[in-house]
Amino acid sequence: MKTNPGRFFEDYSIGQVIEHAVPRTVSGGERALYHALYPARHALYSSDEFAETCGLEKSPLDDLIAFHVVFGKTVPDISLNAVANLGYAEGRWLKPVYPGDTLRSVSEVIGLKQNSNGKSGVVYVRTRGLNQYDEVVLEYVRWVMVRKGNLDAPAPETVIPELAKVVAPEDLVIPEGLDFLRYNFTLAGEEHRWADYEVGEKIDHVDGVTIEEAEHMMATRLWQNTAKVHFDATNREDGKRLIYGGHVISMARALSFNGLANAQMIVGLNGGAHANPCFTGDTVRAYTEVLDKAETAAPGVGALRLRLVAYKHGAPEFAYKTDEGKYHPDVLLDLDYWAVVPL
Amino acid sequence: MKTNPGRFFEDYSIGQVIEHAVPRTVSGGERALYHALYPARHALYSSDEFAETCGLEKSPLDDLIAFHVVFGKTVPDISLNAVANLGYAEGRWLKPVYPGDTLRSVSEVIGLKQNSNGKSGVVYVRTRGLNQYDEVVLEYVRWVMVRKGNLDAPAPETVIPELAKVVAPEDLVIPEGLDFLRYNFTLAGEEHRWADYEVGEKIDHVDGVTIEEAEHMMATRLWQNTAKVHFDATNREDGKRLIYGGHVISMARALSFNGLANAQMIVGLNGGAHANPCFTGDTVRAYTEVLDKAETAAPGVGALRLRLVAYKHGAPEFAYKTDEGKYHPDVLLDLDYWAVVPL
Amino acid sequence: MKTNPGRFFEDYSIGQVIEHAVPRTVSGGERALYHALYPARHALYSSDEFAETCGLEKSPLDDLIAFHVVFGKTVPDISLNAVANLGYAEGRWLKPVYPGDTLRSVSEVIGLKQNSNGKSGVVYVRTRGLNQYDEVVLEYVRWVMVRKGNLDAPAPETVIPELAKVVAPEDLVIPEGLDFLRYNFTLAGEEHRWADYEVGEKIDHVDGVTIEEAEHMMATRLWQNTAKVHFDATNREDGKRLIYGGHVISMARALSFNGLANAQMIVGLNGGAHANPCFTGDTVRAYTEVLDKAETAAPGVGALRLRLVAYKHGAPEFAYKTDEGKYHPDVLLDLDYWAVVPL
Repeated sequence: MKTNPGRFFEDYSIGQVIEHAVPRTVSGGERALYHALYPARHALYSSDEFAETCGLEKSPLDDLIAFHVVFGKTVPDISLNAVANLGYAEGRWLKPVYPGDTLRSVSEVIGLKQNSNGKSGVVYVRTRGLNQYDEVVLEYVRWVMVRKGNLDAPAPETVIPELAKVVAPEDLVIPEGLDFLRYNFTLAGEEHRWADYEVGEKIDHVDGVTIEEAEHMMATRLWQNTAKVHFDATNREDGKRLIYGGHVISMARALSFNGLANAQMIVGLNGGAHANPCFTGDTVRAYTEVLDKAETAAPGVGALRLRLVAYKHGAPEFAYKTDEGKYHPDVLLDLDYWAVVPL
Repeated sequence: MKTNPGRFFEDYSIGQVIEHAVPRTVSGGERALYHALYPARHALYSSDEFAETCGLEKSPLDDLIAFHVVFGKTVPDISLNAVANLGYAEGRWLKPVYPGDTLRSVSEVIGLKQNSNGKSGVVYVRTRGLNQYDEVVLEYVRWVMVRKGNLDAPAPETVIPELAKVVAPEDLVIPEGLDFLRYNFTLAGEEHRWADYEVGEKIDHVDGVTIEEAEHMMATRLWQNTAKVHFDATNREDGKRLIYGGHVISMARALSFNGLANAQMIVGLNGGAHANPCFTGDTVRAYTEVLDKAETAAPGVGALRLRLVAYKHGAPEFAYKTDEGKYHPDVLLDLDYWAVVPL
Repeated sequence: MKTNPGRFFEDYSIGQVIEHAVPRTVSGGERALYHALYPARHALYSSDEFAETCGLEKSPLDDLIAFHVVFGKTVPDISLNAVANLGYAEGRWLKPVYPGDTLRSVSEVIGLKQNSNGKSGVVYVRTRGLNQYDEVVLEYVRWVMVRKGNLDAPAPETVIPELAKVVAPEDLVIPEGLDFLRYNFTLAGEEHRWADYEVGEKIDHVDGVTIEEAEHMMATRLWQNTAKVHFDATNREDGKRLIYGGHVISMARALSFNGLANAQMIVGLNGGAHANPCFTGDTVRAYTEVLDKAETAAPGVGALRLRLVAYKHGAPEFAYKTDEGKYHPDVLLDLDYWAVVPL
């Protein structure tokens, strides 16, 4: 058979390295589309001059463009037969991605655990995105539940990697040259500095966006993510297309501009859960909770650890989990990340 | 509160200068999206070689891209709490915008008039779009009705600016170097020259486009215009998203290619009204009335003053106002502008 | 009348040469949109580095972008009053198209045959796409049925051009410098070489995409194809917009990556039929039949002649025609083309 059936649980082994197809050169076209698909306004990713004032050579592509491009390549090898996308950890952005760069992805299997039902198992991979100079621009761990293709295949030895609950502030990589000493708050859109945010503070990002089929499909294709659930309305009995979780991440992050306009660059991904599926017609809203604060070695640059919660319908009033510790049924996303903010 | 509540009527004062966030570097990506969102075909904005033959260094971005980018930045400061967008005047395009340019916007408050009900007032601003060299690329006056946040705030002194009903032909700025002496009418798509148009002539642009949610939202986001009425279907009781008036302007202008293929560049905006709201499912059509003609100092370049009327459903048969002088309920847009045309 | 009524059958004559408006400069923006509109993943069109390894200067724009841009320009002159798009033949891609190139189109009328009912006729044109150096990048023959505007116009002498059923392998033009000796199958996404494909082999491309209005309109506009049936929902009694046949071509070709990831470049178009109309809500699937194989003079480069069949709803189980030799009602496209593949 010439077509790709995807890997099943028994096809993975500890230490296995998978080089993913297809490398991708990005341009101003991807940026323009990102701005058309999401209400993205962070100035560092919008203006070459603003980025230069912050010590960068020019405006990079949004950190989440880098994430989606790197992630999308892994789908045919990692999650084509996935039952669920279970989590993220130890994500770090290591180099900005500029128009003209070419990205590719490599994953290493770092954990395996067959489920007790014998029908599926959990696969942990550490994925790295590399540019045309073989520099790692991004890395993260993801774990997914994957079906077994052959139920008689023996269970592998269980290996569960030890993963940091949080990327330690000293492990965050601030882009070379980044300098917020000449940061222009007026052009950035808000006055709030690192010192203005308090741990425990919650920010309602106010705005909502009602999701359309054409938009989430264009976004998902743009990252060359071809999982059929996102595109084929005949795939589910209810005729609905499941929206790529990354679409909700980008939508919520863009909405968070309102209140976090100065949380310019994402530098760490501590964890994340796609709490409930998102479908066309849902109106996505978001709020953020400040989880932690840290200093960095870069001039004028602080870091905030943020919990970004996306939800649909009525506001969950900052309560993203029920009393039983489960996600509220309206919560779509729970994302724990580090961003850099001017001091 | 960290989020932007927008300015209320009492927050404006005469002479106030507002520097708007967020600067934006544009590229070929914005052009490609413009071509995907509107049936835009004017040759000067489509081909570098055609633009060079017309004396420009290369093909600029569509004049309306410049307008929308500059306009979009003003929304969070000017029209977030606006009840209505009342009018435009004294618009002039002063410099072409090329891929790689970075645009920002600055507005000055030039008029204020509290309404007699004490609940709102009219704010007049002159907005300028500047490029990375601090050159003004575009300027226009707009006035909006804005709610008061504090009904007890005292009424400001009434100042109503004197605005020209029409930009005088001698005040139009023709881009430096523009020269239509070697203009290629075959490649441009039509044979009609400046001399072929008569004052009073009306041109039915024939084609119609049925509007979709995904398209108007992508367009509006592309200009970083974040007014929630365009995106959040839960915002209105009828569940409809109001379409950004600029989307109708661009759609009608692009449709006007059919009959005005040689009305290449917009150089003046005399006035404009969004006569009725536009919603998804409406089929937008357009006609143009030639209002005036003028010569310019540039070689081979004439100017036409045009009334562009966009309407939905049945043709209004060139009658955009009722006998009582009100807009016909099917009329969406009444735009009065100057364009340059080869002699 | 200033607007373009389109040409009628009696307006064409043998030998007539039509220079089409509007030239178009393409950029990375068009590529990004192509990737957003179609699940396109062929590595040569995705990565500059991959293309360089294959002997090209950088990654060209997808061959079908070139086709659509060239084709779109012909619509106002050739098919505005067309009743049906009847066929394609003798298509050859002669030069890759790179970001920054400017394309224009010229057609020559090579055949005419009035229908026996006297109300319409068939027009054959050979269309060439040229770049800014006046090099032909693409040529193909297309024939369409066009209405007569004046039923009293005399029938022209019937001329039916002799058209090759298949572009002979020796007439295929392989891009200068193309070299697959260092081809990276891992990055390309599949292991299958030219030798792995057998004549008669059929490949089900597995995935399906449900079509949306916003997407097909954006795609069709991007090519400046303005035929009203694609945009105006009031144009047909059933309120449906007919989807541009080229949208189905690109969708099916992109889907064919799954099984034909190494069929990198399209070099010949032997024939094609839009068997049935496609509408929003249809889920497009595709399969390919290997029709022929040929060697080429380029290092490591072989050619495959492929029949690409797009269909909707249930799988036609590789039976695209009924026993009576007619297209199965679910078949949308029957495209016969040559692609180059590493040996």
